[in-house]
Amino acid sequence: MMIGQGFDAHRFAPAGTGRPLWVAGLHWPVPEDADSTVAARYEGIEGDSDGDVAAHALIDALLSAAGLGDIGSLFGVGAQAHGAGMHGADMLRETVSHLRQHGFAPTSASVVIIGNRPKIGTRRAEAESALSQAIGCRVSVTATTTDHMGFTGRGEGIAAIANALVIRL
Amino acid sequence: MMIGQGFDAHRFAPAGTGRPLWVAGLHWPVPEDADSTVAARYEGIEGDSDGDVAAHALIDALLSAAGLGDIGSLFGVGAQAHGAGMHGADMLRETVSHLRQHGFAPTSASVVIIGNRPKIGTRRAEAESALSQAIGCRVSVTATTTDHMGFTGRGEGIAAIANALVIRL
Amino acid sequence: MMIGQGFDAHRFAPAGTGRPLWVAGLHWPVPEDADSTVAARYEGIEGDSDGDVAAHALIDALLSAAGLGDIGSLFGVGAQAHGAGMHGADMLRETVSHLRQHGFAPTSASVVIIGNRPKIGTRRAEAESALSQAIGCRVSVTATTTDHMGFTGRGEGIAAIANALVIRL
Ligand SMILES: [Zn+2]
Ligand SMILES: [Zn+2]
Ligand SMILES: [Zn+2]
Repeated sequence: MMIGQGFDAHRFAPAGTGRPLWVAGLHWPVPEDADSTVAARYEGIEGDSDGDVAAHALIDALLSAAGLGDIGSLFGVGAQAHGAGMHGADMLRETVSHLRQHGFAPTSASVVIIGNRPKIGTRRAEAESALSQAIGCRVSVTATTTDHMGFTGRGEGIAAIANALVIRL
Repeated sequence: MMIGQGFDAHRFAPAGTGRPLWVAGLHWPVPEDADSTVAARYEGIEGDSDGDVAAHALIDALLSAAGLGDIGSLFGVGAQAHGAGMHGADMLRETVSHLRQHGFAPTSASVVIIGNRPKIGTRRAEAESALSQAIGCRVSVTATTTDHMGFTGRGEGIAAIANALVIRL
Repeated sequence: MMIGQGFDAHRFAPAGTGRPLWVAGLHWPVPEDADSTVAARYEGIEGDSDGDVAAHALIDALLSAAGLGDIGSLFGVGAQAHGAGMHGADMLRETVSHLRQHGFAPTSASVVIIGNRPKIGTRRAEAESALSQAIGCRVSVTATTTDHMGFTGRGEGIAAIANALVIRL
């Protein structure tokens, strides 16, 4: 049994850029009744991927546990990368397929999402289901804020810390 | 054997608010000989709980490992919540009781406390003892600063990262 | 099987202080073609050790997993400490020797390095080899940035989160 650690952070995109918000394998529409100062400033996540910090942190945790590199070595970096435009859940599926080809399988994984939004708690079961189906084992999702401190607390972005256990088949 | 990840952060309360400082199951009085600029500005932790980041991060790690939700779903959120006013060690005891009712038991846990104060190293054995007794297995406590960087380094608040292993009984 | 969590952060030293940059057991020369604004401002890491955040976070994860204290209790703190001037890989070797003397051995470890530089991905295999040799089991290394957010994103410093599994011999 081997252990892996993962971390990821992404910046929220300014309003008007038309970027959707994807976190933990789910699409999060900006709620109509959202805090207008937040909803007006931010939409989705900047970058070449869908910016799903939970999925990306889990991918690094899984690859680390298996000793198979990281998200950059598997999916590439930048707009031309293999992973550009892919959703987190699809990247997770491909990651686990890569693990299995090398004789590994995940047995347990967990991710903490750190940020002011989205409100993960309102859809936690749905998020756990989406990620668990993608990985093929139980994935737990928790969420917390940082009491208005730091870049997550100021609402500039969102971060995730993940860990995972993997066995050799 | 299943793995869980936890994270928590809380803001220090301004001086004069009479909030005590609880971290890692222990009460930390503001030392008489403390750096006066720090001691004068801050007392305890803001919020509806005792703000024990170490206990709260461990609770999320334990609940995640067992797939039983998070601290918000078990204890509620806000001043009216079931967990409001509870100390971290008591919350940990209730968390482990919840795990056992669902057929799980923790076997090992660990937490890193990130902040300028309190000086965990001076009472680390006592903190590990308090948390281990609450959880019923060995809990390790380490502590570090961030070289005056970020919200923990500026002394605005304190954070904790935890992990845990849980078995099915 | 026991689990441990580790975290560390260090501040980059201003240019002209002659401090080398050591991360993940490797020396990272400031590249000639580096972004001049970054390369001109920063050299190595401040402090009494070589500031190897990856090694230090792994040391705390290993000591935590074994319940044997933390990097401060094993190596001391400050310029007079036993660990002052030691390289991270040597500290890791001494840590594992300490574990073995107490009847423990690491079986798996993983570390995420968070920062703008050095570019870990360019020498990841080399870093994993250096750390794995020092610990005596597989160590995985991943790296990520924080999209210019927070102290790591502003290039003020570098951080690392590690986890480890340890068995009783
Ligand atoms: Zn990402
Ligand atoms: Zn809390
Ligand atoms: Zn250090």
